[in-house]
Amino acid sequence: MVLVDSKNLKSLMKQVLLLHNVDEIVAKTTVEGLVHASLRGVDSHGVRLFFHYLAGLKSGRLNPNPNFVFEQTSESTGILDADHTFGHAAGIKAMQLSIELAKKAGSAHIAVKNSSHCGALAYFALEACKHDMIGVAYTHATSRLKSANGQREFFGNNPICFTAPMKDEEPFCYDGANSVITFNEVRRYKDLGLELPYGVVADKYGNITTDPSQAEQLISIGDYKGFGLSMIVDILCGLLTGMPVGRDVSKMFGDEEVLKNKRYLGQFYSSYKIDSFISKESFKERLQNLANTLRNEPSLEGVSVMVPGDPEKKIEAKRAVEGIPMPKEDYKKFQNLANEFSLGESI
Amino acid sequence: MVLVDSKNLKSLMKQVLLLHNVDEIVAKTTVEGLVHASLRGVDSHGVRLFFHYLAGLKSGRLNPNPNFVFEQTSESTGILDADHTFGHAAGIKAMQLSIELAKKAGSAHIAVKNSSHCGALAYFALEACKHDMIGVAYTHATSRLKSANGQREFFGNNPICFTAPMKDEEPFCYDGANSVITFNEVRRYKDLGLELPYGVVADKYGNITTDPSQAEQLISIGDYKGFGLSMIVDILCGLLTGMPVGRDVSKMFGDEEVLKNKRYLGQFYSSYKIDSFISKESFKERLQNLANTLRNEPSLEGVSVMVPGDPEKKIEAKRAVEGIPMPKEDYKKFQNLANEFSLGESI
Repeated sequence: MVLVDSKNLKSLMKQVLLLHNVDEIVAKTTVEGLVHASLRGVDSHGVRLFFHYLAGLKSGRLNPNPNFVFEQTSESTGILDADHTFGHAAGIKAMQLSIELAKKAGSAHIAVKNSSHCGALAYFALEACKHDMIGVAYTHATSRLKSANGQREFFGNNPICFTAPMKDEEPFCYDGANSVITFNEVRRYKDLGLELPYGVVADKYGNITTDPSQAEQLISIGDYKGFGLSMIVDILCGLLTGMPVGRDVSKMFGDEEVLKNKRYLGQFYSSYKIDSFISKESFKERLQNLANTLRNEPSLEGVSVMVPGDPEKKIEAKRAVEGIPMPKEDYKKFQNLANEFSLGESI
Repeated sequence: MVLVDSKNLKSLMKQVLLLHNVDEIVAKTTVEGLVHASLRGVDSHGVRLFFHYLAGLKSGRLNPNPNFVFEQTSESTGILDADHTFGHAAGIKAMQLSIELAKKAGSAHIAVKNSSHCGALAYFALEACKHDMIGVAYTHATSRLKSANGQREFFGNNPICFTAPMKDEEPFCYDGANSVITFNEVRRYKDLGLELPYGVVADKYGNITTDPSQAEQLISIGDYKGFGLSMIVDILCGLLTGMPVGRDVSKMFGDEEVLKNKRYLGQFYSSYKIDSFISKESFKERLQNLANTLRNEPSLEGVSVMVPGDPEKKIEAKRAVEGIPMPKEDYKKFQNLANEFSLGESI
């Protein structure tokens, strides 16, 4: 692993995007979102995706200069057509629109259509907390979760993110998909030669397996419950937006042909002004107290009770100082990019 | 088991409440909500609760004639003070208010304070679908879920309900708490002398056990994920309303003294007008197609892939005709009530 300074990395990625004629704000929000995820330890959704996005840009999947079209449909709702640009740019735009509407209407919800992969949702939902609002974000994704009772994947591992401001620290942030574990975790078990716990993955026939090399499908939290939550996210992100749902959601990865296809993804972003319900000062103080109480709960040996978002806050504090740990191969790829575009020893 | 006609049962319960000087609409909505749950097979939240509510009415916990105070705080938000009446009456009132606001504002959210137990959430959230809206309902509850990494219960088994209208059948309805299984299910294992699956309950020290007689705490779906979802519900229902949260949420059951205490519960109800995002006809047709597709998914042997709400729809079709199955003891209690108030052979 190489430790990379987040500012240098951000600067390099942004320059590369600009040299590919990506719009200034689209480039800025995309690299900010990727670095945000990496700083918080969400490496699967962090800077490693940059190369995937670059490939999508070159193949024509991603639109470097979108013509965002926003239609406000009521006091508290609207639709944003993202024109097939980077999902990060669409998400920040939509979240900002929902915050603006919520300032007047008390709450607001923006459905995004013709979008693409948007990385980790926390980046968007946390925006609302800067305005003393609760932020919520959803995105659907490629079919990966085994359906309850079914033989095969149906819904994506569709995440839900919920944020709320606190008095003395960064906001509360729950950002979770609906599988028990991730494929990254499955790979770790495989590499270590370990058996998986029972009930977290299924083989290609839909049968539960504990052999990581047979894992083809992820099982949802609470099986039919996580499956239901993923369907809810598909209803919000796919049906309210007119985008494909279930097994019709486009593939993220694949050969050159796949990478040419636009994603046609939908996302859904909500803001709730806290003052519309209760004094924001009292809310933030009570949420702070609740978090403090939780952290002091009697815990099992060797572990402690944490508030959702605590692991990410801890990692962010460390990585902001020490840098983002990056596999050597990725570091080399970034260096090659810097050389290719004569950007010098940027990272 | 005795099969009881739902209309007769509803009529008996309503008459008993009216004879206790309960407001006409409060009585009507409470018995409708209880029967609604029983018809759908959600017996834990159905008519068996009537005796608990009656005890709460007699003890002074529940206010028979509430002075509902509604404050609209913005175009799309409001607070309802339920004045410690039956949670069903407060929930229907709040859902109706959110629907009215959403008709104009596109979406709306009503936080309810000073409420009590409201039974199953589907009864409220389904109201929105009658107006071609998505309905969402949340309530917090007494501490029952083991906290992730913790030794003891912290959050309640706080449910989330999400409904959406469909073209050719009753609405989509996900109504689920965040535990893997319920205490009712634990009791069933105990009665059958069976071991529980691993990872669904913990003993009084917070250690996982498969012995149903040692089960003291429920484990959340995905452990820290369901724990996080329950915290989100507590934020909406407890912090936005000024009600207690976590282990401070009042106890539902207990001795006479406990039953005297008002619950100080909060609930949160949302309505989203589908036409604010996409044509409602197209939405309902696509949701219908999605449900049909899911039901035709290749399934494991002996089971079939179901849409959330399918089991309840199936049971409701049967019970609407055959009646609600009731344990003999409960049937006798209802008969005694009928005799006590000279209501004849009402059920």
